[in-house]
Amino acid sequence: MKILRQYLPILDWGSRYDRNALSNDMIAAVIVTIMLIPQSLAYALLAGLPPEAGIYASIAPIVLYAIFGTSRALAVGPVAVVSLLTASAVGQVAETGTAGYAIAALTLAFLSGGFLVLLGIFRLGFLANFLSHPVIAGFITASGILIATSQLKHILGVNAHGHTLPQMLGSIFEHLGQINWITVVIGVAATSFLFWVRKNLKPLLKKMGLSPLMADILTKAGPVAAVVATTVAVWLFGLQDRGVKTVGDVPQSLPPLTMPSLSPDLVWSLLVPAILISVIGFVESISVAQTLAAKKRQQIDPNQELIGLGAANLGAAFTGGFPVTGGFSRSVVNFDAGSQTPAAGIYTAIGLAIAALFLTPLVFFLPKATLAATIIVAVLSLVDLSILKKTWGYNRDDFAAVLATIVLTLGLGVEIGVGSGVAISILLHLYKTSRPHVAEVGLVPGSEHFRNIHRHEVETDPTLLTLRVDESLYFINARFLQDLIQERVTEGTTIKNVVLMFSAVNEVDYSALESLEAINLRLKDLGVGFHLSEVKGPVMDRLNTSHLLHNLNGEIYLSQYDAAQALTPKRKND
Amino acid sequence: MKILRQYLPILDWGSRYDRNALSNDMIAAVIVTIMLIPQSLAYALLAGLPPEAGIYASIAPIVLYAIFGTSRALAVGPVAVVSLLTASAVGQVAETGTAGYAIAALTLAFLSGGFLVLLGIFRLGFLANFLSHPVIAGFITASGILIATSQLKHILGVNAHGHTLPQMLGSIFEHLGQINWITVVIGVAATSFLFWVRKNLKPLLKKMGLSPLMADILTKAGPVAAVVATTVAVWLFGLQDRGVKTVGDVPQSLPPLTMPSLSPDLVWSLLVPAILISVIGFVESISVAQTLAAKKRQQIDPNQELIGLGAANLGAAFTGGFPVTGGFSRSVVNFDAGSQTPAAGIYTAIGLAIAALFLTPLVFFLPKATLAATIIVAVLSLVDLSILKKTWGYNRDDFAAVLATIVLTLGLGVEIGVGSGVAISILLHLYKTSRPHVAEVGLVPGSEHFRNIHRHEVETDPTLLTLRVDESLYFINARFLQDLIQERVTEGTTIKNVVLMFSAVNEVDYSALESLEAINLRLKDLGVGFHLSEVKGPVMDRLNTSHLLHNLNGEIYLSQYDAAQALTPKRKND
Repeated sequence: MKILRQYLPILDWGSRYDRNALSNDMIAAVIVTIMLIPQSLAYALLAGLPPEAGIYASIAPIVLYAIFGTSRALAVGPVAVVSLLTASAVGQVAETGTAGYAIAALTLAFLSGGFLVLLGIFRLGFLANFLSHPVIAGFITASGILIATSQLKHILGVNAHGHTLPQMLGSIFEHLGQINWITVVIGVAATSFLFWVRKNLKPLLKKMGLSPLMADILTKAGPVAAVVATTVAVWLFGLQDRGVKTVGDVPQSLPPLTMPSLSPDLVWSLLVPAILISVIGFVESISVAQTLAAKKRQQIDPNQELIGLGAANLGAAFTGGFPVTGGFSRSVVNFDAGSQTPAAGIYTAIGLAIAALFLTPLVFFLPKATLAATIIVAVLSLVDLSILKKTWGYNRDDFAAVLATIVLTLGLGVEIGVGSGVAISILLHLYKTSRPHVAEVGLVPGSEHFRNIHRHEVETDPTLLTLRVDESLYFINARFLQDLIQERVTEGTTIKNVVLMFSAVNEVDYSALESLEAINLRLKDLGVGFHLSEVKGPVMDRLNTSHLLHNLNGEIYLSQYDAAQALTPKRKND
Repeated sequence: MKILRQYLPILDWGSRYDRNALSNDMIAAVIVTIMLIPQSLAYALLAGLPPEAGIYASIAPIVLYAIFGTSRALAVGPVAVVSLLTASAVGQVAETGTAGYAIAALTLAFLSGGFLVLLGIFRLGFLANFLSHPVIAGFITASGILIATSQLKHILGVNAHGHTLPQMLGSIFEHLGQINWITVVIGVAATSFLFWVRKNLKPLLKKMGLSPLMADILTKAGPVAAVVATTVAVWLFGLQDRGVKTVGDVPQSLPPLTMPSLSPDLVWSLLVPAILISVIGFVESISVAQTLAAKKRQQIDPNQELIGLGAANLGAAFTGGFPVTGGFSRSVVNFDAGSQTPAAGIYTAIGLAIAALFLTPLVFFLPKATLAATIIVAVLSLVDLSILKKTWGYNRDDFAAVLATIVLTLGLGVEIGVGSGVAISILLHLYKTSRPHVAEVGLVPGSEHFRNIHRHEVETDPTLLTLRVDESLYFINARFLQDLIQERVTEGTTIKNVVLMFSAVNEVDYSALESLEAINLRLKDLGVGFHLSEVKGPVMDRLNTSHLLHNLNGEIYLSQYDAAQALTPKRKND
């Protein structure tokens, strides 16, 4: 039963569900549903799919996440960054608008869902840590720029394509002759209106006496107003006949039952993008979930979250959707609107199902330029280049990773961008550990504490060389230590004893063990003692299984002070 | 001038060359030349090339290494492992025996040489550290098994092929019908003789009163005796007409001038193998060079070694050779025979050039089975499975890397084997650092030293939680620390102050800085102080550029003892 509750969190909160929670959840669901309709249509457009796919992708996934997920407030569905990744991945295997494109999107959701569930079952959530904060920040910023640029074609009413910044800009430039000025007017008006809403509406509403919560929700409903106004305008003036592209016919239907393709070629070419979408989607989702949970001191289980998101994506794959994850803006609205349990998600799904059945004719005249405007305004808030300045000031390695991520994402696409960011972070880290900082240390007078002789006024003894190695010893730096000690001992002819202070050595792998054995032999040949101090428990346990300690031409000291006491007898007589 | 001497070590030792060195070098050269003739032919066979390629690959490379290399004793030329790698790489783009095969081998040497020179110029020798000792040991062992198996076909006189163990064994099994029994007799006799020489000849000769050095050199000349005896046998009994394959016609010529191909397709498909050959060749060569240099207290400059080996490979590419590196057995013979300077290499090259011009008709009747026997006996000494046992006892991660390297090298080929070994080593290291050991520490009574409360009898205070984080803080474990402290502080309600003891923290990257800022904020909300102790110089320098210290809800203490004194006032009054 406990295992069942762990894997099915719904059993936990469902058993304590009451009337109060019901009414709070219902109110939140109504607000979220209204907000989600234009958002879902817009993200389907961004992913290159028909508009109804966006609504379908919000129904089954929401319900499945409510059953398997651990966050009380997370709202799952299409989000900007994952939709961009979908367009980029699927665009490489099929043409937009074809049946193959939709099937590839289902397959991508299926692979991503399967991968997430596997990660969850094998409790491999820590893999998301490979994405460092700067790489994520750089990727999100670059994605914001890419997404906004990708929507320019809808604002201009031209046919353009491409998945990198140069491709998109080049393609738009080529098609400038096609510009439809009525579309431009609608697009620019909608964009300006939404920017104004985002910036000025909330203070205005508050001044007018509305509660902060109400003001906030009305502000978030801005896109709905833009959608209604421009749809009515197109209908009234017959603008669809003057070249304004609209959403058009959307089938009135519940989500259909669909099957992803398992053709090996398709699976093989979508595998890497699916993994990338899974990891990035998971990182985005868990950040939102943890932020919201911390506000109410609730717990998020990262491995169960993987299962919840995986189930949501599998659901999307079989109900005409595309890859989904927990979205920031929809989750915040859900949270602010007072949702108490994941049941709010289930009610939202019901609301969207009703919309899919009865309301789709209303969006026939909705201009694509309006949806593009909602996307542009939403994603430009993601663009934050200040991470470049912050990392430059703190650490050039992090700066290099951010810069590479941004430039390569914009220039060569999202997969290469994120892949390079991760690879550069890891390589720079390994490079740093390959030539560790090693400090010669001496005693801080009046204490038992040992510090770097070049940074502190300390006492030393010419017969004793004490080196504090500031890194775990493993294959990347095993030879470095060997060379360093060789060099120091050949230089310092008065040295009778070498102590390696192991306070910062957290690991000694087999390569490093062989290096220590080699050092021990060489020092023995030179008649120099070789000692270790402050060896930590786990490292000592490991060394005890080797021959090193048995052959050691010296001692292991609990503290560096003990070592110095034993090896510089003069000091004892002070 | 100093720069010139750094890049052209020949200027250094050449200016002090005297008669004594000359005569020592000459003697060593004669001995090495005799040993190299059969060895060069054998490794050409192993690489799938005509026999003369082996001799050519020993002439120009030796001279170029003598000019640019830093080792006094290293002998450069074809070696077993690199020849295997060559056969595996070139076999994927061309058929053995075709002109395209030879050109691909030249191209491989050219790419490898260029890559080594680039690494040397940019001083990137440390990249070789990515190969951990266990991965190298596993790779060498697996290569020995692969090479010995690849020679079985010559011993049996059948046509077989393949680059992995299952391929080779399968192919030999298919062609068992072709077995030539006279070839088998020659091959088995030669192999048995060489094993006997290797094991028993040296003690026997010593017992007969020869000096150890002389006994050693005669033992190493065993292959020459086998070559002479079997060649004479074939010639006397006309065995070449009874199906015994011999070396046959070898052109009498100095090394020709050849051009590697720069066709983009070929370059592209050989690039990864070339990098692998460069790195593995470099690791093998530098180990030999450093072992020999240490015996005479000479210095090896790894980056200059890259340039020396790179020049040698470029030389091989333009003179009809194939990839080369510093070989263990030939270098040891050279060293033992008393060579004093790299000039010995130049004399060896002259000796081989004379052999190439005048002696090649003598090997017409040399059976390929004899060459195969010399290879088998040489490489089986490389096979050492004890590394599996040693790493199993010490560290399961190293064991996993060794096992994967051996199994995958044998089963899927050398590139996948080594690549997986390196990838597994790095991933396991990152995984380990992703969940670091964190010890709660207390004061060791009667000292100022702090240790793990679970391993030592120490004094603690219920209001003070001191955690020693045994790992650098970076993106892989940034979230881990945040979660850990959250958990510890929610559990321990008496805690008023948290100290992170940074003695083992060698780096705080930007991701970890953000985590520390988040921890600081959360603890401030809970009214708990947040302090750091024993922060190292380089880490402190970095933190000083951030906002963390400015906003820190606590202090930075030089030593953990100072922190405990300040934060547990009772103790002061004791």
